[in-house]
Amino acid sequence: MTVQQTVAAIRPLDAGAMAAARELQGRLTKPAGSLGALEELSVRLAGLAGRCPPPLPEPAAVVVFAGDHGVHAQRVTPWPQEVTAQMVGNFLAGGAVVNAFARQAGATVTVVDVGVATPLPVEAAGADGPRLIAAKVRPGTRDMTVTAALTRDEAITAVRTGVAVAERLADDGAGILLTGDMGIGNTTPAAALVAVFTGADPAAVTGRGTGVDDATHRRKIEVVRAALRRHAPDPADPLGALATVGGLEHAALTGFILGAAARRVPVLLDGVIAVSAALAAAALAPDAVGAMIAGHRSAEPGAGVALRHLGLDPLIDLGLRLGEGTGALLALPVVTGAVRVLHEVATFDAAGVAEK
Amino acid sequence: MTVQQTVAAIRPLDAGAMAAARELQGRLTKPAGSLGALEELSVRLAGLAGRCPPPLPEPAAVVVFAGDHGVHAQRVTPWPQEVTAQMVGNFLAGGAVVNAFARQAGATVTVVDVGVATPLPVEAAGADGPRLIAAKVRPGTRDMTVTAALTRDEAITAVRTGVAVAERLADDGAGILLTGDMGIGNTTPAAALVAVFTGADPAAVTGRGTGVDDATHRRKIEVVRAALRRHAPDPADPLGALATVGGLEHAALTGFILGAAARRVPVLLDGVIAVSAALAAAALAPDAVGAMIAGHRSAEPGAGVALRHLGLDPLIDLGLRLGEGTGALLALPVVTGAVRVLHEVATFDAAGVAEK
Repeated sequence: MTVQQTVAAIRPLDAGAMAAARELQGRLTKPAGSLGALEELSVRLAGLAGRCPPPLPEPAAVVVFAGDHGVHAQRVTPWPQEVTAQMVGNFLAGGAVVNAFARQAGATVTVVDVGVATPLPVEAAGADGPRLIAAKVRPGTRDMTVTAALTRDEAITAVRTGVAVAERLADDGAGILLTGDMGIGNTTPAAALVAVFTGADPAAVTGRGTGVDDATHRRKIEVVRAALRRHAPDPADPLGALATVGGLEHAALTGFILGAAARRVPVLLDGVIAVSAALAAAALAPDAVGAMIAGHRSAEPGAGVALRHLGLDPLIDLGLRLGEGTGALLALPVVTGAVRVLHEVATFDAAGVAEK
Repeated sequence: MTVQQTVAAIRPLDAGAMAAARELQGRLTKPAGSLGALEELSVRLAGLAGRCPPPLPEPAAVVVFAGDHGVHAQRVTPWPQEVTAQMVGNFLAGGAVVNAFARQAGATVTVVDVGVATPLPVEAAGADGPRLIAAKVRPGTRDMTVTAALTRDEAITAVRTGVAVAERLADDGAGILLTGDMGIGNTTPAAALVAVFTGADPAAVTGRGTGVDDATHRRKIEVVRAALRRHAPDPADPLGALATVGGLEHAALTGFILGAAARRVPVLLDGVIAVSAALAAAALAPDAVGAMIAGHRSAEPGAGVALRHLGLDPLIDLGLRLGEGTGALLALPVVTGAVRVLHEVATFDAAGVAEK
């Protein structure tokens, strides 16, 4: 399927199902509005599903898109590039935080190599462990301060890979998709994308990633500025922006989000990599925002800027900046709880409870 | 056991276990500090348990302390007093939001009648359902604008009831205790207690509870002001404050928190009723704060004021104002995840991942 076909399949939320969910919320045994943000979330998920109550968001599937970055050569991070491949090995062995949180939440973990630059560890995952999908578009992007990170065709291939992964998981019955990412250096292209789509200054959206020092942080801001100056990406051409200043996991996540929205499966966003991809997805298909849930507000400043631009309020705000899908997984029980209320809570009438 | 004996059993956190947890966090395969607030929470729970890693907070037990309020006569809420008893029936039948969230989180629900004023529904709970503990101190408090809500002995009895419930659940192996409450009108004494222990003006800590209108809200503030003027409760005499302007569920929750802290079981606080009780517990035993985790920031203004006074940052902040333990239950997976990291995540050495 072409990206245009996926985009065309993304439709607005169902107003009738949303009205039914609002009405049901008002009859449940609790003061009206007392579940705060969970009530509006349940209404939106009814609109996405086109029925009230919407299905419980189960089973959950987190997908970690992994890629490397030519801009690593500009010393935007102290971590060696090999760590991307090593962490993929850690994911497949079940030893990373995303694995621990996924086991707790009952979510499957799928790792997609869309662009890891160095050889992956040879150890295979156990039968029950995370699945690796080999879909390398190229071994890392090019250095965006020197040339376009990707050709337009490479970016489109990565987007379509993300769409295909979302479709496969939806076909397998996933009730919710969670975004994950791994890529040493990937907060730099994320900052560039946030700047492109929100119009924010690079200094306002470029953070310390894994915790870089002041000198590296200043260099990182200048790197983002240089890349934007060189390519002058047009926010009205999201595929062009993903190609020139994006990353392979960013492009794949854009497709993953679009694929989820097209299938009307909610997609729970993790941190700054995910929300930078979400900006591209929303630029391609504004109605895709209806399928997005902001799992958390990353400590990366670009994440908050992107969420405001998308009009999404995060469910968790605990200063996380790990990526991998960890923030999305922490928020999953909140999403499930919001929907569960519509399924399981008694009405005033049924419970014999008086109203005010 | 007397309240003084329980207080005397509450000791500081174990610095050695906390240091061990900090050191372990630094060796796990993630950038240092990238799990934000979860890292410090895991360190604190190691200090409470006195070992690293601390045990996973399982199984979880939420206790809903239910009571009525003489101040209901002052028209501080539009809900009839009978709703307290009716909601206890709803809890026992499994139809309330606390039940739905507890099923999702795998937590048991225990309902304690410490002071319901009207008859409880006769239907018994199912064998698998929530347990009801009958421990009525008296059928509702007295109107605190006219006289003390409770005698000192009644307040002490309620505190000791809460201690005993915590001890019983700890004996049964609970790994974490969650506070819950039900009581029509109970945000009014909660506001009074927050004002007493923080020194805040009643207007700053008295909220709209279930969503009262402007006239009721103004009246509620004046009711709190009148009660504080009449009794002038001394924050250095927490039992006196609980007696004069508190409630039976507030006093029982104070004991529940103290009992958890004495047994070194973490106690996850729900909303404004819980944090008003936590202020009393902290005034009796400052080291009890080490056992407290703020589940969420309730929409009630007094909750935020109380949490700041206690030095606790909430895990969830989604505008909830339902009570019952619902906000604590939503936060439980975050607590479990914070501890799980110390148990399950690989170290850099073990995973063969390079450090920066």
